[in-house]
Order: sequence, then structure tokens, then C-alpha cells
Amino acid sequence: MVEVSFEQISPADFFYRNRDIAGFSNPSRALYTSIRELVENSLDAAEIGKIPPNIVVELTSEGTSENEETSIYRLKVEDNGIGVAPEYVPKAFATVLFGSKYGYKQNRGTFGLGGTMALLYGQITTNKPATVISSTGGEEVHKFVLMIDIVKNEPKVFKHEVFENKEKWRGTIVEFYLEADYTGSRAKILEYFKHTAIANPHTSLLFIDVRGRMYYFPRATEKVPEPPVESLPHPVGVDVEAMNRLLSNSKEKSMLSFLVSNFQKVGEKTAREVLELAGIPLETDPKKLSHEQVAALVDAIKRYNKFRPPDPSSVSPIGEELLRIGIENMFKPDFVYVVQRPPSSYSGYPFVVEVGLAYGGEIPPSESIQLYRFANKIPLLYDERADVVWKVVTERIDWSNYKIPKVAPIALITHICSPKIPYKSVGKEAVADRPEIERELVIAIRETARQLRLYLSKIEKKQTAVKRLNIYAKYLPIIAKCSGELADKKPPDISNLLNRLGIDKELLKETHEKILKEIEEKYTVTGEG
Amino acid sequence: MVEVSFEQISPADFFYRNRDIAGFSNPSRALYTSIRELVENSLDAAEIGKIPPNIVVELTSEGTSENEETSIYRLKVEDNGIGVAPEYVPKAFATVLFGSKYGYKQNRGTFGLGGTMALLYGQITTNKPATVISSTGGEEVHKFVLMIDIVKNEPKVFKHEVFENKEKWRGTIVEFYLEADYTGSRAKILEYFKHTAIANPHTSLLFIDVRGRMYYFPRATEKVPEPPVESLPHPVGVDVEAMNRLLSNSKEKSMLSFLVSNFQKVGEKTAREVLELAGIPLETDPKKLSHEQVAALVDAIKRYNKFRPPDPSSVSPIGEELLRIGIENMFKPDFVYVVQRPPSSYSGYPFVVEVGLAYGGEIPPSESIQLYRFANKIPLLYDERADVVWKVVTERIDWSNYKIPKVAPIALITHICSPKIPYKSVGKEAVADRPEIERELVIAIRETARQLRLYLSKIEKKQTAVKRLNIYAKYLPIIAKCSGELADKKPPDISNLLNRLGIDKELLKETHEKILKEIEEKYTVTGEG
Repeated sequence: MVEVSFEQISPADFFYRNRDIAGFSNPSRALYTSIRELVENSLDAAEIGKIPPNIVVELTSEGTSENEETSIYRLKVEDNGIGVAPEYVPKAFATVLFGSKYGYKQNRGTFGLGGTMALLYGQITTNKPATVISSTGGEEVHKFVLMIDIVKNEPKVFKHEVFENKEKWRGTIVEFYLEADYTGSRAKILEYFKHTAIANPHTSLLFIDVRGRMYYFPRATEKVPEPPVESLPHPVGVDVEAMNRLLSNSKEKSMLSFLVSNFQKVGEKTAREVLELAGIPLETDPKKLSHEQVAALVDAIKRYNKFRPPDPSSVSPIGEELLRIGIENMFKPDFVYVVQRPPSSYSGYPFVVEVGLAYGGEIPPSESIQLYRFANKIPLLYDERADVVWKVVTERIDWSNYKIPKVAPIALITHICSPKIPYKSVGKEAVADRPEIERELVIAIRETARQLRLYLSKIEKKQTAVKRLNIYAKYLPIIAKCSGELADKKPPDISNLLNRLGIDKELLKETHEKILKEIEEKYTVTGEG
Repeated sequence: MVEVSFEQISPADFFYRNRDIAGFSNPSRALYTSIRELVENSLDAAEIGKIPPNIVVELTSEGTSENEETSIYRLKVEDNGIGVAPEYVPKAFATVLFGSKYGYKQNRGTFGLGGTMALLYGQITTNKPATVISSTGGEEVHKFVLMIDIVKNEPKVFKHEVFENKEKWRGTIVEFYLEADYTGSRAKILEYFKHTAIANPHTSLLFIDVRGRMYYFPRATEKVPEPPVESLPHPVGVDVEAMNRLLSNSKEKSMLSFLVSNFQKVGEKTAREVLELAGIPLETDPKKLSHEQVAALVDAIKRYNKFRPPDPSSVSPIGEELLRIGIENMFKPDFVYVVQRPPSSYSGYPFVVEVGLAYGGEIPPSESIQLYRFANKIPLLYDERADVVWKVVTERIDWSNYKIPKVAPIALITHICSPKIPYKSVGKEAVADRPEIERELVIAIRETARQLRLYLSKIEKKQTAVKRLNIYAKYLPIIAKCSGELADKKPPDISNLLNRLGIDKELLKETHEKILKEIEEKYTVTGEG
């Protein structure tokens, strides 16, 4: 008989063993992911307090190994968010799967993982503790020096100091060491900051890199977007487990009132119909539902197809105007068209798709369309080909329908926002191809592509017109002149004729002066003959 | 001030909230992933006991909802593996991150996740308990009926029965209910079984589907491959955390003997040099190393570049012969070439790349190469474009160098095996592009492509030769005959001449008879004239 021993590992240990899953697969990507996770925590911490975020990221080299690709860096991220109460700091930063409780609304982070993973990665590559300084704006500033006990998934606090908060500072500073490769990740990091600034124009971002170079992305607006509202769950998104949790927390006396008060879009009429479909008496005590009744209830909700769509107030899109401004700042394009789709939903979660298509300007011409993907206002820069947007662009849209040249300067910007983005990985880089999301993307992209076709047709028409103008401009005036001379009249007005050929006055005037010389030079001589 | 409350969630709760990450993103993929995880556990359970696996998978519809895309299924997977001791059954199947302890060797599963995730998914979609029956071949068979307490990450056992094991049965049966979509996943599931049979020719697999159709994949060989050997870790793969764990478990008295006895490829000379590089005295007590010394030791190991590569005995490749047989059974190709690369390593983990390239036969002609990816003898069927193989095939290999027609019947089969496959996600569908793995793939694929070019050149040459032969066959014999008649001699031997034109004797003979008739018919008449 083969002896097998078993063991249980902590979630910290699991992610320590499987760090590729969380985006820490190599020193270059680990640096990128660390910065990203901390910046996103900072954005959330400011947004929740309706504070225009000021974020400063500082990267310093601490490396002694010279001719190596990787070395040791110190990474410091400071924000002016709401801060973390001191009793929560050690666990919030040094326990995996411990995080701020958030309900049914749009957030950037994955619950209790990102920031801690960055510190965990730093710890296992440098064995140095991290420093967290935070204040909620009260009388005190707290400073913790800590590490993660990976086996136990617990914080080990080495030092805890309390300072008087004379300046009423509020925010959080995280500082730690990690083995990284800045040379290999610099381009992605800068791209990340640039795109984050576009999707969060109320944010001020300062990045000071290893060589002391400063990259400053000032805020484009003081207006802080309304933070997404936390709302009740939509019944369609609730499975047996979630239903059991709601039932066990409920203080309602009957299933009828339980359904009405725990879900959005459920009034008394709907609740009655659902319970009837499930074969559950209206007055049943929510605490006394059997296993089978819970399953029947969830099943009835799936079969009941008369729910109104989920409330989109838990979703916070960028908005057509800000998206357009962002794209214009980014590419100075000749053409840009932005579409915001109405709220839709998948599995009970509302979502909104926003799409911008830009052409020309500073976009480098290419055989393929440049994609710029965003989800919940954060840029997605890796695993492009695994993303639903890639699938839609390469498989669902027939670009040959839109008169786009083979090599063209086109950029497509997409933003998906939802209280729950169906990411394919903890690393949050690719969105899964849920059919409902795919469909909205197809509609929005087609709409922008049609507008681009119109624009390109106009351009083409103008170019054809210019060609025609060149031809007519060459011969018509001469013919007119000759005819005039023959008839001894002043040359006839040919503008009507040109107009009918699609050459308007403005274009005529514009081209006229340019061509006049040429005509004069060439044909005045001929005219003498 | 904004009040934020914090909470800690269990790993079961984390994966319940993020099931897309583990491959349970929709009813179709969830069924595929469930079958896959259980079959892979069964394969591991047989392999560890050197038992030729017999695996029976049975899917039965329990659905009441008729016109729905999804319905309720019962999934039962039975194997003849080593079984699970009764004291471990509840936790092994109903606790996330609890699993059989495995060390430094090749395995199929992700530690303590796959099987439990399948049961968790079943539970949250049906609210029904699962049944696990197991015996290690002793006097008793144990049957458990259980569910997962997701909030606590603990098993809830409803029933535990013990039976007398009269027939000395050994193995495990897992049976549970889940909401799924078999119509949408059938093709992938059958593909999965087919490919699993190819990579595991010692396995007998029987699948009985919803309509009672039986798919039987009999074993192709009785020879059970040597199970991969568990070995000591290679120093290069050990980070600070792993080093701390080894140090705290060590019974050695000095760092010198600690290094020699805890790592592969470290003898006394190497250990001395590494400790010198780290500035740690040889006789230091392993339990008394400071934080800084541990970090210095790990850093010294990274800088010390004279280690011999890791021991590949913990890796179990398919082998060139079995891989070729598998590919031949699969496609009946006109051409197949298989390459097994010598063991290589990344971050201290050994790995072996095996590649087969097949052409013609039953491979459908296409503009793109058909990819068949395997890792540790399991097929990878999703997220192809996120995989390192896709990257290599589309970006690193210039296929135009290999004379391959635009539309061609080509299949590329790749197998990566290692004690640690760097998957990009818990769903185990895409391998990360570690540079070392990428490099081995490039070399192996290029080698197979060169062989294909040779084959295609021969084909082309043969075709050209046949064309030439047709021409020469038409005229040469006549010329020869006429010349012969003129000179009153028997026709000269033209085989040397044909040889110089690239037409060998075999080909000549082969074509000769076929063409002879045509010549006779056409030219005998002309010869008379």
C-alpha cells in the first residue's frame, strides 16, 4: 500500500506557491503588478471618500548586484485616501483574503489579495519587512513595520509607532523592497500611468523613477465622479450559497417580505409569482426553508423571466465626454467617435460598455488595430489575446466592410464597467467572453466603425474631388478662356459646374491659389500660341 | 470620515466568489472542468501506485427544466487508484487547499483545489450533497455524504457508512450533482478524453454520456510509466520563504551540512563556495541565521552560476515512441516527426519539451496550424492564444522558411512536463512564456519544421520528377527508338540520363508501368509513320 500524507495550506501559502496566477510571474511583471495593485488600492481609497486622488509613486534602486538583469528596488506608494484604521492595518496588509468589506458595487481590486500579494512577493524575494504608515485624518498617525507569516497567513508586526498628527494628514504610505526588473517593465509601467490618467481624469499622479526622472500626470478635472452606489443584489445573480447566507442573516418573518426587502427589482407581485413558481408558501419562515426549498427557489428565479434588468447605479462609467477628451489628449486624432451603450446585465450583474474609435493623428499606422482596454477605469495591458475585446475585434467584426485601408492609423478604446468584471485570472488582465458583454461590444464597435466609414468616405470623396479639380482646373479655365475669346466675352462662371462634380467653393478656393501658378506658368504660354 | 469595515474570508469563499479563475465560468465549461479535475485526480491516484488506470465517467441527466440550455446532471467518476484513507476523505473532498502532500515531482493537479472546486460548484448550483466512496484495498469500504461549509471552509458530513470489503476493491468513486450544459461542452469533453488517451496510453477510459452512448478508449499498452521520483529541491528554485522553511525543519548542525543534505546538485565544494559568496561562516547553526543572512544566502545562490542543471528524474515525459504512436493513431498522417529535447530548467525546476509535427492524412487543411497542447500528460484545450506555444508558433517561427503551402494539413503537438508547470491561471489552460521554455519550444519546433521542409521538398521533387518523367517518357523513348532505328541498333539505355534529372530507378519503375500503356497506345502508331 502506498502511504500518502495530507496537509492543509493557508491561502497565503497557496498564492506563494502559485504566484504566476496573481501576475507575479517574473521580476519585470512583478514590479508592474505591484505598482498596479497599490495604485488601484489608492484610487479606491480616495474614491470612496469622494477625494480627488493625489498619488505619488517612488521607485529607488537598492541593488548591489550590478551586471544583473534584476536588482533590489524600494517601492513607495503614497495616497491621500481615507486611510486605514490602525487596528486593521496589520491584517489588511499582511493577511491574504482579508480586506475591506465591499458589497454590490464597482471596485477596482480583487478582494483582499492585490496589495498583500505585492508585499508577499517583496518579502520572499528580499526577506525585508514592509512599512505601512496611515492615518484616517484624526489625532494620530500610525506606523507599522511588518512581515507576513506565510504558513499561518498572519501578520508579524516588528514595530508599531504612534505619532501626533499635527498637520491633520490623511492617507496611506506603503513602502517595501522587492526584487524586480525596471528596465524590462518601464515601458509598461509608463503606459499604465498614462492610461490610468486617461480613465481617471480627476487623479493627480506623480511617478519618480529609479534615475530620479519625474513623470507627472496632472488632473484634468477637479470633478470627482460620484462613487458607485452599493445596492441590493439582483435575484438572477444569486446562487444557492448566496441565498443561504441572505436567509441566515434575515430578520424577516415571511418569505414574501424576505424577497421584497433583500433584492432589487422585486416588489410584492414579483415575489408572489416567484414563490408560487418555486412551490413555497408565502408565509414560510425564511429560517425554516429546507435544502430542497432553497434549491427550488433559486431554480424558480432562473426560470422566472420577467425581472426588470439590474439597477445600473452600482456602475460608474467614464462618460462619453471624458472618454473623448482622454482619447484626444492621447492621440490628437483626425477622427474620434465615442459610444456609450445603455446599461445591460449578465448573470444578475449590471454592466456598461463604452467604446471610442480614433483615426489618424499620432496613432502609428499598422496592419492591425491598436487596442486600449479598460475595465472599471483601470487599463489592462497584458494578455490582450485572451480578452473578449480581442475576440470581438478579430472574429466578430468584418473590418473590410468599413473601407479601412490595409495599413491604417486606428486605435480602439474599450471600457467595461460592472460591480463584477468576469476576469479570467486573479491577475486581472483579461475579461472572459460572457455572451452579453460580447454582444454589447459588437454593437458599440460596429457603431463607431460605421462612423469611421462615413469619415473615410468623406476623405476619399474630398481626395477624388481634389483630383477632379486638378483635371478640371487644368483644362476648364483654358476652355472657358478660349471659348470666351472666340465669343469675345468675359470667361463664363464655371462654379456651378464644379459644384455638381462634388467640388465645393471652399475646397475650390483652397486649391485654386495653389494651382493657379501652375496653370499660369504652363498655359499662359500655350494661350499665346 | 468614511466608515469602512473589514472582513476575512476563507479560501473556499474566495474561490466561490471568483470561480471564473478556476475554470468554472459558465455551465458548459464548468462541466468540462469538473470532469477534467476528477479524471486527473484519478490518473494521479493510479500513477502513484503504479496501477494501470481504469477510469469510468458517467453523466446522467437529472434535469426537470426541459427547454433550457442548462439542466441538472449527475456526474460519477470511478477509478482503481490507491484510494483515500477514511480519516482524510471529508477534508480531501470538502476543504479548499487541503490535499495530498506532494513534493518536488511532476503532478497533474493544483494542490488541494480542483476536485473540491468541482464539488463546490455542484453544491452552489444544486444545493445537493456529494457522495464519496473509497477504499485503500483493506477490510473496509467507506461511504461519505457531505457538503462544504463555504464560509468556514470545512466539511459538513451528513452520513458516514462502513461496508465490508469482500472483493478487496480498491479505488475511489465520486458522485455529485451540478448545473451544466452538456450540449455546449460535449465536443470539448470528447476531445479531452481522446487527447488524454493519447498522452496516457496505459490508461483505460470509459465515458457513458447522457443518452447512454459509450465512448471507450482502451489502453494501448500495459506498461505503466515509471512514476516521477520525488527529489530534493534545486538551490536556484528556492526563495527566502522556502529557505526559511528548510532551515526551521533542519536537524543539521552546520550550514555546510545543511546545504549538502537539503539540496540536489550541492556537494561540499559547492556548499563552501556558496557560503563564502554569502559571507556566512561554514559552521553557523542553521537555526541561528539572521534575516539578513538568509537573504544573503538566497542572493548568493542566484549569483553563483556554477550549479549543475536540476535532476530531471522528477520529470516524466511521454517519450518519442509513444508520442509518435499517439499522433499516428490520431491523424494517420503522411508525415510525422517527433523531437524530445534534453532536460532543461527554469528557476530551478527541470522541464522537458516534446514536439511532434504531422502533415497530411486526416488533418483538415487550414490556413493556420492546428495546435494540440499537452502539459504533464494532460491536454490543454482552452485559452490557446494565451499560451506560450501560440506565441512561439505565431511570432517566433517564420513558417515561410519551410516551404509550407498557404493552406496545408499541419498539426503541431507539444508536451511540456515539469514538477512545476508555470500555468497562467488556476484553470490550468495556458502556460506562461518563461524564456527558457519558449527557447526549447523554438528549437524543437524548428527542428520538426526542417524535417517537414525536407519531406515537402521530396514531395515537390517527386511531383516535378513525375512531370518531367511524363515529358521525357513521352519523347525520349521515341527519340531513342527512332535513333535506334536510324542506327539499326537496339534502343540506348536512358536511365543514366533520367537519373541526372532527379528521377531515381524506383520512381521510374513505379511510374513506368502506369505510363507504358499510354505510350504504347499513343506512340506505337506514330512510330509506324
